[in-house]
Amino acid sequence: MEKPLRIAITGAAGNIGYALAFRLAAGNLLGPDRPVILQMLEIAPALGALEGVCMELRDCAFPTLDGLVATADANEAFDQADICFLVGARPRGPGMERKDLLSANGQIFGPQGQAIAARAKKDVRVLVVGNPANTNALIAASAAKGLDRRQFHAMTRLDHNRAISQLAEKTGSHPREIRKVTIWGNHSSTQVPDLSQATVGGKPAMSLVDAEWYKGTFIPTVQQRGAAIIKARGQSSAASAASSAMDHMRNWIQGTPEGDWVSMAVPADGSYGVSEGVVFSYPCTCKGGDYQVVKDLPLDDFLKEKLAATEKELREERAAVESLLG
Amino acid sequence: MEKPLRIAITGAAGNIGYALAFRLAAGNLLGPDRPVILQMLEIAPALGALEGVCMELRDCAFPTLDGLVATADANEAFDQADICFLVGARPRGPGMERKDLLSANGQIFGPQGQAIAARAKKDVRVLVVGNPANTNALIAASAAKGLDRRQFHAMTRLDHNRAISQLAEKTGSHPREIRKVTIWGNHSSTQVPDLSQATVGGKPAMSLVDAEWYKGTFIPTVQQRGAAIIKARGQSSAASAASSAMDHMRNWIQGTPEGDWVSMAVPADGSYGVSEGVVFSYPCTCKGGDYQVVKDLPLDDFLKEKLAATEKELREERAAVESLLG
Repeated sequence: MEKPLRIAITGAAGNIGYALAFRLAAGNLLGPDRPVILQMLEIAPALGALEGVCMELRDCAFPTLDGLVATADANEAFDQADICFLVGARPRGPGMERKDLLSANGQIFGPQGQAIAARAKKDVRVLVVGNPANTNALIAASAAKGLDRRQFHAMTRLDHNRAISQLAEKTGSHPREIRKVTIWGNHSSTQVPDLSQATVGGKPAMSLVDAEWYKGTFIPTVQQRGAAIIKARGQSSAASAASSAMDHMRNWIQGTPEGDWVSMAVPADGSYGVSEGVVFSYPCTCKGGDYQVVKDLPLDDFLKEKLAATEKELREERAAVESLLG
Repeated sequence: MEKPLRIAITGAAGNIGYALAFRLAAGNLLGPDRPVILQMLEIAPALGALEGVCMELRDCAFPTLDGLVATADANEAFDQADICFLVGARPRGPGMERKDLLSANGQIFGPQGQAIAARAKKDVRVLVVGNPANTNALIAASAAKGLDRRQFHAMTRLDHNRAISQLAEKTGSHPREIRKVTIWGNHSSTQVPDLSQATVGGKPAMSLVDAEWYKGTFIPTVQQRGAAIIKARGQSSAASAASSAMDHMRNWIQGTPEGDWVSMAVPADGSYGVSEGVVFSYPCTCKGGDYQVVKDLPLDDFLKEKLAATEKELREERAAVESLLG
């Protein structure tokens, strides 16, 4: 057995946290030879439920689970962490304005960023899942003095996987056959699911579907999939969000396959005209434990306009939390 | 990729089904080279929620998921199934007597047994998770004309894993170091968690713990663990039940490790004085896709008395559903 990986999960007693914890404990992230220690954070009122999650995790007798921490103290949860999944976030309450929501979450993710900088490993990888994910990641990265902003990502992998799934269904193919789908921008309804570079069994996706389906069905279906899940299940996406979070982290650590890329919301670096200061989803390849934004893909006017709109939203989100950024 | 495995799950929109479906789709049962087709059964009122589960499963773009069926028709769910997880069961309602509960479940598991015999593969493996699991398995096996009773098991693996976990915690060891724990009898509070043959890091478990802890703490903790989880989480065990169901099925198919065994509730065959006619949890080894009850272990008077009590309960359960047995 290799040295155990310390994985922090916030909001660990919630539905996504619950789905994530068992798959991590089962060795689904890096395989059966890499044991994990789960360091789970919850707000104090949820510590009872979190203890129940710990009991169930122990009850599985997982060979790959080397330890459990359950705490309401961020310093303890992030101590020596190799990986942090920031899942817990403040949901929008009745009558809550967007600005209030952003600010309430800022007050969670700022202190968490500080605690990560203070206590986690220096090469920690952080994935923000809790919404508004991009701006929460921005806040956490800003607060994490001494760490590189590139260590803080937000998750658009669920959107990416949803896009693959929709394209597979439309073309009668398997997700295994699909490459180079991209989600651009914000993990919100302004996100831009892009098939312009995508292939299905090696053929250009746009040669297999018509533009009307792409613009009129595919894009809105992916953008609004979260709401459709809530309508069908009566609960928001949980296991699929957990699965996608693991996909993101696995690729970041182990690399992306040759000839493909994944979508990751990372600090904007000027690529595609998006200047620094927001966390923006790009096509990314990973190698040697690091990621690179795929550069210089052609964008048509339709995509340029959509990218500008999602960037505008991210700039507005940033403006609403400017006072929280260091 | 090998030929996909068809896996039926009943009660697939429930909490255990939800946890199970995603781990199966992720390739957690037989690994990344064995794709699966999930054939999910629900009662008609839950088909909307089940559609939500299907949406989320597709949204994961699992490379190992080759198909999804969602239906309220048992014949469709079990069609060509290699494996059936019978999770859905009628929970005890207010004022419901034990006899009524057994009978209500009999009316679910009898027709399911018939449908499995009619539609599943001839070498299908069936694991009953829904309670009262042992007697539900008995009913399903009785109704499945043309199949061998040995193809119908009930799950005591969660109890087995809980016993390992409790012993590991008490002895400061890891579940990986523990061998030869046994759960005897019924998956109910009369079950008999037995450490008499268990070892921890090669040492006899009973040389590491005292008899008072074994009888006064360990046994009741394992027996009543389900209630303790409900108390802590506010919901019954879900992910741990799903994980244990996969453990049971994986060992049945792939075998048990040399020098160890697992607990499986299987048709009683006279071993340990338990005559035919009930489904009884025994220590079992698996090889070549089949299981064998471990024979001739010594039982002291304490264990003999406990085994007699859990057998008595199973005989009473059987008597309550006798009219449903073919």
